[in-house]
Amino acid sequence: MGANDQVTAQASAVGDIDEYMERVGQRARAASRAIAKASTAAKNAALKAIADAIERDVDALRAANARDVERAKRNGQDPAFIDRLTLSDKALKTMIEGLNQVAALPDPVGEIGNLKFRPTGIQVGQMRVPLGVIGIIYESRPNVTIDAAALCLKSGNATILRGGSEAIESNTALARAIGEGLASAGLPADVVQVVETTDRAAVGKLITMTDYVDVIVPRGGKSLIARLIADARVPMIKHLDGICHVYVDDCADMDKALRIAENAKTHRYGTCNTMETLLVAEGIAPRALPMLGKLFHDKGVELRVDAASKAILHASGLDDVKDAQPEDWSTEYLAPILAVKVVASLDAAIDHINEYGSAHTDAIVTEDHDRAMRFLREVDSASVMVNASTRFADGFEFGLGAEIGISNDKLHARGPVGLEGLTSLKYVVLGHGEVRQ
Amino acid sequence: MGANDQVTAQASAVGDIDEYMERVGQRARAASRAIAKASTAAKNAALKAIADAIERDVDALRAANARDVERAKRNGQDPAFIDRLTLSDKALKTMIEGLNQVAALPDPVGEIGNLKFRPTGIQVGQMRVPLGVIGIIYESRPNVTIDAAALCLKSGNATILRGGSEAIESNTALARAIGEGLASAGLPADVVQVVETTDRAAVGKLITMTDYVDVIVPRGGKSLIARLIADARVPMIKHLDGICHVYVDDCADMDKALRIAENAKTHRYGTCNTMETLLVAEGIAPRALPMLGKLFHDKGVELRVDAASKAILHASGLDDVKDAQPEDWSTEYLAPILAVKVVASLDAAIDHINEYGSAHTDAIVTEDHDRAMRFLREVDSASVMVNASTRFADGFEFGLGAEIGISNDKLHARGPVGLEGLTSLKYVVLGHGEVRQ
Repeated sequence: MGANDQVTAQASAVGDIDEYMERVGQRARAASRAIAKASTAAKNAALKAIADAIERDVDALRAANARDVERAKRNGQDPAFIDRLTLSDKALKTMIEGLNQVAALPDPVGEIGNLKFRPTGIQVGQMRVPLGVIGIIYESRPNVTIDAAALCLKSGNATILRGGSEAIESNTALARAIGEGLASAGLPADVVQVVETTDRAAVGKLITMTDYVDVIVPRGGKSLIARLIADARVPMIKHLDGICHVYVDDCADMDKALRIAENAKTHRYGTCNTMETLLVAEGIAPRALPMLGKLFHDKGVELRVDAASKAILHASGLDDVKDAQPEDWSTEYLAPILAVKVVASLDAAIDHINEYGSAHTDAIVTEDHDRAMRFLREVDSASVMVNASTRFADGFEFGLGAEIGISNDKLHARGPVGLEGLTSLKYVVLGHGEVRQ
Repeated sequence: MGANDQVTAQASAVGDIDEYMERVGQRARAASRAIAKASTAAKNAALKAIADAIERDVDALRAANARDVERAKRNGQDPAFIDRLTLSDKALKTMIEGLNQVAALPDPVGEIGNLKFRPTGIQVGQMRVPLGVIGIIYESRPNVTIDAAALCLKSGNATILRGGSEAIESNTALARAIGEGLASAGLPADVVQVVETTDRAAVGKLITMTDYVDVIVPRGGKSLIARLIADARVPMIKHLDGICHVYVDDCADMDKALRIAENAKTHRYGTCNTMETLLVAEGIAPRALPMLGKLFHDKGVELRVDAASKAILHASGLDDVKDAQPEDWSTEYLAPILAVKVVASLDAAIDHINEYGSAHTDAIVTEDHDRAMRFLREVDSASVMVNASTRFADGFEFGLGAEIGISNDKLHARGPVGLEGLTSLKYVVLGHGEVRQ
C-alpha cells in the first residue's frame, strides 16, 4: 500500500474502513496459503533480510520514530509512555537479534508426530500446521511489529498488525523493512500487513472478520483486552492479569523461601509474573514472617497484611504494615506493594490461589514431595512451580526461544506462547487403499 | 435437584432461569475442583457404577423414553427424529459398553511430558489437566447424555448437559443413573448436572457464563450451531459441515480409486465424513470417469458434473447426469448425490478443496510420493488422507478410544476430539531454590 492509500483509508468513513479491512483480510487469507507451504530456507532468508533492512535503514527508522515521539510529547504523554514508544539503540539491537534468533529456531511446520498403525491397516498421525491468519493488536511499543511478525512468519502464518496510532510512523517504516525482507526471499508482500489507518473502526472490523482471521493476539493493558473481549468474534489468545502467589509451606527451606520470595517480588515490580500475594503456612509463620517482613520492609515494599500476619509482624517489632482489604487479594499491583496472608494448610493455600489468583503463575516453597506434587496438580494456573521464582514464567526461560505473549486461557495454549502456540495439529492418514468396513 | 425444583425452573420467567443457571454454574465450578483431583480409580468406579445403574433400572429408563417418544409422535415428528430419540435395546447396550470402554482408557490427567532441564537449573515440563467445566448442548439423541458425561468425567471435567426438550424424561432418568454412579464412587453429584428445564433461555445463559463454563461442545444440526455461534461468549469446540473430497490423481491406482471413492460416498450417505465432491485429474479422467460414473450410477447416486466430466461421461454412454451449479461445490448433501469435477492438476485440486471444502476431511488417491506429501501438507483440513477412505475420520478409527465430536476449528483441537481434546497442558517447573538473574 502506498502513502496515498493510507491517506484515503485514514480519511475515510467507517464504511470505507470496512471495505479496506475486508481487502486486507482477503489478501492475508491468500498470503496464508503461500506462507503455509513456504520452505524453511525461504522463511529464514526473509527473517535475516528484514534484520539487514533494519540495520541499513536505521537512520530513516530513527527519524520516523522521532516524529512519533515528538508528537506524543506534544500530546502530553507521560514519560513511561514515551519510553515504551522510543526505539532506542538498545531496542533496535534487540529487534535485530530477535529476528536472527527466530531464524535459528527449528521450523515447527510440517512436523509429523505419533504416526501409528491401526488394526485396519491405515497409519494415523498428527502434522503441525500454521493457524492461518493471525491478527496482532498492540499499543505503543513499535518493537512488537518486528517481534510478532517474526514469530508469525516462522510459524507459517500470515499476519495483520494493528499497532497504536501513536507509533504509526515507526510502524510504517518497520513495515517497509518487513516488505523488503519478504520480497528478497520471494515471499508475497501480504504475508505481513500493517494496518495503515489509525481509525479505531479498523480494530472493530479486524476482531470480527471470522472468514479472514483465525486468531487475535492482543498485547496491551487491561482496558484494551477488556474492550476486545466484549466485541471479538475471532478467537483470542489473551493475556490478562498476573496475580501470582508464592506459598511458603510448613516444610519450606527458609533460605529458599527468602531467596524466592525476594526474587519473585523485587526482581522487577512491573511484570506480569511478579508475586503479588505471599501466603505463609500457619506452622512456619512465627519463624518465617519476621524474616520475610524485614526483607521486604528493607527493600521499601509496602506490606498489606491479614490479622494473623499483623500479630506476628508486630511481635517481631515490624509495625509499618497496612491492613489488607478484601480487594487486595485480587489486585495486580505492578508496584512495590505485597499482600501477605497466613493460611492454615496446603489446602487453604490452594483454595486461596484458585479463588483469588488469575491462573497465571504460582509457586510453592517446600521440601515435602507429596505437598509439592499436590500443589503442581491442584493449582489451576498456566505455570505452577516448586521451589523456583515466579519470574521464570517466560518463553525464553522455558526454552521456547521466544514468546508472542503469555496466555491466561485454558483452550489451545496456556502460559508462554511460542512458535508451537501459533500452530495446531491436523490428522494425517497414510493408507494403501483401505476402506471402512 | 428434586422434581419440585424442576417444575419451578420450567415454569419460571427468564429472570429465574438466569438465577437457576447461575447456581448450576457455581456448582459445576466447585465440582470441577473435586473431579480434577479425583483418582483414576474413583473415576473408573463411577463409570462402571453408572453402567450398572443403567442395566439395573433399564425398565424405568425404557418407560421414561417411551413417554418422550409418545409425545414426539403426538407432536408429529418425522420417523428419522423418532429414530434418534428412541433408546432401543441396541442403543442401551452400546451406552453400557461405551461406559466400560471409557473406564478402560488410560487417564490423561496428570501426565507430565517433555520435562527438560534449562541452563538456569530449573526443570520445565507440561502437565495434562482438565479444562474445567464443559457445557454440552445437544438435540434429540439421549445417548449423548451418557457418552458426553463419560468422556468429561474421565478427563476430570465437570459437565453441564443441556439436551433437547423432546428427550427431557429420558435425560432425567439417565441423570439419575449418573448421580448414583458418582455417589457410589464418593464423587460429588454436581460433577455431572443435567439442566432440568426445557426453557430456551437456559441455553442462552449457558453459552455466556464465562465465569463458570470453560468450553461448550455443541452436538447437533447446522441451525443449532449457527444460532450458538452468534451468541456464545464461552469458547466452543464446534462441528460444522463435512464437505469432504476425494481427489483421483493422474498417478492413481485405479483399483484403489474405485474402492475408496465407492466407500467414501456409499458406505453411509448421512455422515459428516462422507465424500460430497469427487475431483478427477485431467490426465486420468478419460480412463477413470467412465468407471467411476458407472459405479455410482449403478448404486443410484445422482451425479452433478462439470462440463468436462459431462463430455467424458456422455462419450462413455452415461447420459443420466445433471449439470453442476456453483452452489454444488459447497453443498453437504448427506444424500446419494455427488458433485464431480475435472481439475487440471494437483494444484487445482488443492485450491478447489481449500476454497470450497469445509476443512473437515479430504483424501488423495495417488501412487506418487511427492504429490501425496504435498496434498497432506497443503490441504488445510482437520483430517487429510492418502489412499484411504474419508470415512476413517472418526475417533474410534483414529485410536482415540471415543470421541465427543469432530472439530472444524483450528484452535485447540482439530478433527475427532477424544479425551485429550477435553484437557489442556499447563507448565510445571521443578526447582531447587533457583531465582531469575
